[in-house]
Amino acid sequence: MTQHHSRKATASEATLMRIFTVPEAADSTLGRIEQQLSRDLAGFLNDSIAALEKPLSDIEEHFASVQIPKAPRFVSDYVDDIMAHLVAQSVHTASPSFIGHMTSALPYFVLPLSKLMVGLNQNLVKIETSKAFTPLERQVLGMIHHLIFGREADFYEQWLHSANHSLGAFCSGGTVANITALWIARNNLLKADGNFRGVSREGLPRALKHYGWQDLAILVSERGHYSLGKAVDLLGLGRDNIITIATDADNKVDVAKMRAEAARLKAEGIRVMAIVGVAGTTETGNVDPLEQLADLAKELDCHFHVDAAWGGATLLSAKYRSLLKGIERADSVTIDAHKQMYVPMGAGMVLFRNPALASAIEHHAEYILRRGSKDLGSQTLEGSRPGMAMLVHACLQIIGREGYEILINNSLEKARYFADLIEAHPEFELVSAPELCLLTYRYVPSFAKAALDQALAEGNSGRVNAINEGLNALTRAIQKTQREQGKSFVSRTRIQPARYLRETVTVFRVVLANPLTTEQILQDVLAEQCELAAGETSLLADLRAACE
Amino acid sequence: MTQHHSRKATASEATLMRIFTVPEAADSTLGRIEQQLSRDLAGFLNDSIAALEKPLSDIEEHFASVQIPKAPRFVSDYVDDIMAHLVAQSVHTASPSFIGHMTSALPYFVLPLSKLMVGLNQNLVKIETSKAFTPLERQVLGMIHHLIFGREADFYEQWLHSANHSLGAFCSGGTVANITALWIARNNLLKADGNFRGVSREGLPRALKHYGWQDLAILVSERGHYSLGKAVDLLGLGRDNIITIATDADNKVDVAKMRAEAARLKAEGIRVMAIVGVAGTTETGNVDPLEQLADLAKELDCHFHVDAAWGGATLLSAKYRSLLKGIERADSVTIDAHKQMYVPMGAGMVLFRNPALASAIEHHAEYILRRGSKDLGSQTLEGSRPGMAMLVHACLQIIGREGYEILINNSLEKARYFADLIEAHPEFELVSAPELCLLTYRYVPSFAKAALDQALAEGNSGRVNAINEGLNALTRAIQKTQREQGKSFVSRTRIQPARYLRETVTVFRVVLANPLTTEQILQDVLAEQCELAAGETSLLADLRAACE
Repeated sequence: MTQHHSRKATASEATLMRIFTVPEAADSTLGRIEQQLSRDLAGFLNDSIAALEKPLSDIEEHFASVQIPKAPRFVSDYVDDIMAHLVAQSVHTASPSFIGHMTSALPYFVLPLSKLMVGLNQNLVKIETSKAFTPLERQVLGMIHHLIFGREADFYEQWLHSANHSLGAFCSGGTVANITALWIARNNLLKADGNFRGVSREGLPRALKHYGWQDLAILVSERGHYSLGKAVDLLGLGRDNIITIATDADNKVDVAKMRAEAARLKAEGIRVMAIVGVAGTTETGNVDPLEQLADLAKELDCHFHVDAAWGGATLLSAKYRSLLKGIERADSVTIDAHKQMYVPMGAGMVLFRNPALASAIEHHAEYILRRGSKDLGSQTLEGSRPGMAMLVHACLQIIGREGYEILINNSLEKARYFADLIEAHPEFELVSAPELCLLTYRYVPSFAKAALDQALAEGNSGRVNAINEGLNALTRAIQKTQREQGKSFVSRTRIQPARYLRETVTVFRVVLANPLTTEQILQDVLAEQCELAAGETSLLADLRAACE
Repeated sequence: MTQHHSRKATASEATLMRIFTVPEAADSTLGRIEQQLSRDLAGFLNDSIAALEKPLSDIEEHFASVQIPKAPRFVSDYVDDIMAHLVAQSVHTASPSFIGHMTSALPYFVLPLSKLMVGLNQNLVKIETSKAFTPLERQVLGMIHHLIFGREADFYEQWLHSANHSLGAFCSGGTVANITALWIARNNLLKADGNFRGVSREGLPRALKHYGWQDLAILVSERGHYSLGKAVDLLGLGRDNIITIATDADNKVDVAKMRAEAARLKAEGIRVMAIVGVAGTTETGNVDPLEQLADLAKELDCHFHVDAAWGGATLLSAKYRSLLKGIERADSVTIDAHKQMYVPMGAGMVLFRNPALASAIEHHAEYILRRGSKDLGSQTLEGSRPGMAMLVHACLQIIGREGYEILINNSLEKARYFADLIEAHPEFELVSAPELCLLTYRYVPSFAKAALDQALAEGNSGRVNAINEGLNALTRAIQKTQREQGKSFVSRTRIQPARYLRETVTVFRVVLANPLTTEQILQDVLAEQCELAAGETSLLADLRAACE
């Protein structure tokens, strides 16, 4: 990689033009660099480690200058540089032993297709800069709409490509999808009425005055995603008005409590704007009772949003889709194709049961998004957007329902296998069982298990907490060292299990979406954690003291 | 492309695993498909047409099914299909004769780098899924911050990699950047105060009550981008509270009028929350008087945001950066690298002069974004995000300041050349002169020019309008046919020039950012438009009648 595309170190106009020109020959310099890059990427992806640990402060040193370099650099030099300092210090999200987050391996065919997508550089905000990508995106939204709501054929014939209607919206991710859904819910509830021209025009303070409400509230499980907090902040409702409802022992929202809370709010003059069901909580992977939530939303005459950003892909499994039963009664559903649908980062979606729903946020402009146009940008939060829908389209077509059936089922069953492994192990405790493919657990040495059981039986909450504090410190230490060793990676979080009287405990969190994660890898993860625990002699001594 | 990666038409687990595995050999089936795709993409990009016209309804037929296919498909089949039905029907945004929108050619080196970025599949929301990409993104934000605000070296040493501080935020695009800036402005203005816990917690209605204001307003030029309307809608302020101020003959906001409007609002108990300067209006490309706006913002003690989504790249030109003088006094600045910085779609940014500004929207979660972490996601509107910053980093390094100097200067000077060409032509009228590289014009046959001059001299506004209506119809027809012929593409918009007493006229809109657009192409565009005009005999007859 010492060659360069015949450009002098000082830019000249002619050489600059050349970088915008498609290289003619496959054996051109850029062609060779490209092949080298592909080989290096393949090498990185084939590496079996989860992460190479280097202190962040060391890495930061390489990214410290804020001066944009004066002279141009050769592509080959730049590539050498980022291979050494960026790629080598990246996280192996595709590694089969990286099981701590929702980012997994990608099917390899999306890589050349991504290059195609980027090269075409379409802008989905309007047809003039996207043409066939617009109907393609609408088709993908239609497919996911059909997957969720399963409406009849003539419904889709009528609405799929209809101007001024949307079956959904593509977004950069689940956060924007959730914000979009709640924005629409707010604007539909506070719509124009008599002399009042709607919240969209007159704003929230006047809207509440017009409708005679003290406040608007959103009800959601205490396990709701933090993006909902951002949404109510943005929308001017205030974070205090997102009312979190306790979950039952299975980490599912307690609908009776939610109903009682709604009644209390009503008595205070606070209008419930929306209830949100979580289909796959981020921390435990559980699915709220969506049927019951749909009933409650009907009673309250409010918007019913389901945040299935992570769990929604389960609908692709005929075997397990009933876990999400009731989702088809939602007004809006968030789903991220870049989670369990194996699409690269940046493919969020929100789907609307009613294709007219999004007209509550419709907007136009002179030079684009003219009324009656099919420009996708007139009903989206974002403006200019890339053609990510193509990658979702490709995965749906190439993997197909049969392929997804296997992938989703395997993930769920692998999680059940891992749960069994944890439960059978004398030194681990399964804290939340997998409903989908996410579970939490922790390392609990036998002596601590016995002491905990006894303390719980005696109702000695002080002792339970003392033991849990010792275990929390141990969990944090094991997770940190395991991450630093780089052989495998699990994440950690803090939850309040019913068993421990709702006190906060620190747990390992595992998401089993990578098809390449084997049972052996899962066994190895536990073995490694046992070893690491044994090395934490000081923390073990503290724990033992708490158990006595 | 009849081969496939040895997968049967029915998915089996083993074959499915294979699609997640990096192809070992360069001559593997997927390797060959990838080479074919690269050749096809090169063919598409080398094609000199701007767009192939096919009725959208025909294209939609191919994207009509909402059934996710049952059986998997071979990658090769899928690629053949999308080359024929998607790529062939895409818009040639990279074509040198596609001069109608802000999407331009890309330097070819971003394509292999995009594949690398997608393959690494980092998630920038947190360090655990991005590692070195986090300091890289902070460095890019630092570079753009330095480009705009030019703070001293120790400022960047202190803040560039500081946890709980941000010099800016990467976003999917300028819309999210503008929303983020105004969200921060609102939350800083309505911050916690005594018993009041801030708008973020208590919501907008209580915030206004606490501070004793009737409403909040945002002041911006009538040429402000439509995303600002979305922002005030989302934020609960209401679109009525975005107060648009008239522009002068140069399409720059009239600061005296803005000041008068602010005084009027104050008298009504309405607090000006922010004023927005536009640095490159979408429709005419003009830059507001940013110095004067900075003075006004200081007088009003309000947030000063500059929307430089499109024009901000001009700062990379030492020769022309003074056109944006005053931008360094902004509290926040939006800039899209995917416009004039030649980065692919999806690279928006908002920069903050004060690194503590974004703490107004800070949020945390248990499993990520812990307090004190350097996770980028704690101060961004979006959650999971791809590593687009890498492509900005690559362009800044490989093109360098010397390269951008040439690119930006050439664009601006090409626009001046085209403006001269239009002005020298007897049958065209330059409607808005290029300040950056965007201009508007229209076709006006000599007889209509004479009639318009006479009508204006006589102050006969009825006749002026009648002639303009004829010209509007002609402009629309020419633009549509030119787009359909596909040789070249200009966009069209409607503006209210001072010369025509603020009546709305339809104009061609041209953005000259593609380095490959030659003077010859610009001459050809005008020649083609003359020819097309000559063919519009019926519209010409109508126009002639209006001129008599």
